[in-house]
Amino acid sequence: MNEKIGVLGGGSWGTALAILLANKGLDVDIWLRDEKQFQSMKSHRENKKYLPNVKIPDNLNVNNDIEKTILDKDIVLLAVPTHVIRNVLKDYKKYISKGQIIVNVAKGIENDSLLRISQIVEEILPQNKYAVLSGPSHAEEVAVNIPTTIVSASTDKNVAKYVQDVFMTPDFRVYTNTDVIGVELGGSLKNIIALGAGISDGLGYGDNTKAALMNRGIFEMARFGVKMGGNLNTFFGLSGIGDLIVTCTSMHSRNRRAGILIGEGLAMKEAIEEVGMVVEGIKTAKSAYKLAQKINVDMPITREIYKVLYENSDVRNSVSNLMERNKKHEMENLIFPEDVR
Amino acid sequence: MNEKIGVLGGGSWGTALAILLANKGLDVDIWLRDEKQFQSMKSHRENKKYLPNVKIPDNLNVNNDIEKTILDKDIVLLAVPTHVIRNVLKDYKKYISKGQIIVNVAKGIENDSLLRISQIVEEILPQNKYAVLSGPSHAEEVAVNIPTTIVSASTDKNVAKYVQDVFMTPDFRVYTNTDVIGVELGGSLKNIIALGAGISDGLGYGDNTKAALMNRGIFEMARFGVKMGGNLNTFFGLSGIGDLIVTCTSMHSRNRRAGILIGEGLAMKEAIEEVGMVVEGIKTAKSAYKLAQKINVDMPITREIYKVLYENSDVRNSVSNLMERNKKHEMENLIFPEDVR
Repeated sequence: MNEKIGVLGGGSWGTALAILLANKGLDVDIWLRDEKQFQSMKSHRENKKYLPNVKIPDNLNVNNDIEKTILDKDIVLLAVPTHVIRNVLKDYKKYISKGQIIVNVAKGIENDSLLRISQIVEEILPQNKYAVLSGPSHAEEVAVNIPTTIVSASTDKNVAKYVQDVFMTPDFRVYTNTDVIGVELGGSLKNIIALGAGISDGLGYGDNTKAALMNRGIFEMARFGVKMGGNLNTFFGLSGIGDLIVTCTSMHSRNRRAGILIGEGLAMKEAIEEVGMVVEGIKTAKSAYKLAQKINVDMPITREIYKVLYENSDVRNSVSNLMERNKKHEMENLIFPEDVR
Repeated sequence: MNEKIGVLGGGSWGTALAILLANKGLDVDIWLRDEKQFQSMKSHRENKKYLPNVKIPDNLNVNNDIEKTILDKDIVLLAVPTHVIRNVLKDYKKYISKGQIIVNVAKGIENDSLLRISQIVEEILPQNKYAVLSGPSHAEEVAVNIPTTIVSASTDKNVAKYVQDVFMTPDFRVYTNTDVIGVELGGSLKNIIALGAGISDGLGYGDNTKAALMNRGIFEMARFGVKMGGNLNTFFGLSGIGDLIVTCTSMHSRNRRAGILIGEGLAMKEAIEEVGMVVEGIKTAKSAYKLAQKINVDMPITREIYKVLYENSDVRNSVSNLMERNKKHEMENLIFPEDVR
């Protein structure tokens, strides 16, 4: 295999995946828009800001030339935050040819348009094949070869398999799925639940409380996801509950850390500043809240998080609202995957 | 409500529940077999060994007289480890009258007989009604009123509801279920997965690795549970995945802590000694391994844990065996809950 990959974005996840691919011996360029970041990464051979203490392999080309990054590549890897994807694609689509496969690793729903990332790509690059990589995969661990599993999803089975082959290593197990809607929504919505889990932690609630919240969270995600056209089973797989677990319990999660700060009393903007990286769940909470109203799905956790973030609702009241619901029988109002035995 | 409850067993869970019930103003006796423990708890009004720093309320009767503990009670709460339940029931059934409801909070499958606890109770006390309380509920948190959810399961719906009423508080939300098999197996089997999660942590693997293991774990539990007659949905509820999450991620979990020590290189017996409390998952792994062979269900995680615990299999090999399975499509060989939309 001698694939060529252009990685757009030098955050922690883009950097970790570029390192993984370069270590496989593939031909990889990583593009950083920020000139200071680019110079620092190029001269120190380390992403000191977003992925410190991990060496950039000699064969990974760090550059600030987007045309060169995209030119002649088999795969263009989108590793920029959800809210900038549209502009990046619009600005640079002139360099992208229709045979190139777009692989996205951002997890979010665009504000205002309320579109998933595959829908944005479809709108701007209708002729390109698309896949999304999503699952329980903190960059900090993938970069140091900690065993990790992830899902490659594309509506085109062969594209999903091709992306699987390109990214697979002994420590990075890639599974395929054709349910792009379910995989994209699972990765996006779990960040909202992780904000809630962080808030619960920040308020001083316990592991018991957080487990209950996560358990309700997965059903809320699934209810919404199915109404949006996703496959129910996907939400109970790696890109759903798997990713939910890691995001709600790991200190690597920015969304959980932002939630902890909010639970401890910080305002949304202060929490974002303190975390110092994009906290996707904050924007996703807004999109999901609006979509849920539009398609008429009950999302109590998302609603409470939205009110805390955007309407200055008291966090302690919100958690109480979630805990004191009147349901008595365990299985009321839940939704379960299809039986595929 | 002026119910009378006799709690058999002064471990952390029995103590926490006795405190919760006494704080509701109910008439509660807690029986401790160990004379030293009994004297210590009676004089210090604290369970220094298993639940330190929590005051025993004045209205909770601490005693060493089993007959007095059981006499005239509406509920006899079994809070002793799985492997002693049979003997406790056999020795003291002479004090138990048929109108008393037996509530069990131990989580395990008896070695040799391979019976669940409801089956042991049915064998020894065939005329008594039975319920099990299970869910994500570490004693250390319940004892200090941290918001917690739990399931009351009984084949008799009215018994499940009665137990719900007796235990419910604003911070201790009790849900009902009639699937005793599913609730008992969920609580028992998750301890095996938690041993595996601990081993993964102890070996220095990451949150990504553990999330993947837990995700496979819930499907392994569900596959086995359904074959045993449980309801698939139960495994995706609080007493299944909810309890799995808390047990695999909290430092309060003895099973996880034992796993960490084993991952760090200790032998099973050394790990048990170090934890200093009963590690139910170690015995349950043996029972589940044998039952799985008997009913012909594939349980790869349970099998590897069994081999590590009882056949001196190398822990690192076992984790590799689990990570490097050849499955490529995500949904292969999984089992999904019934669709109850």
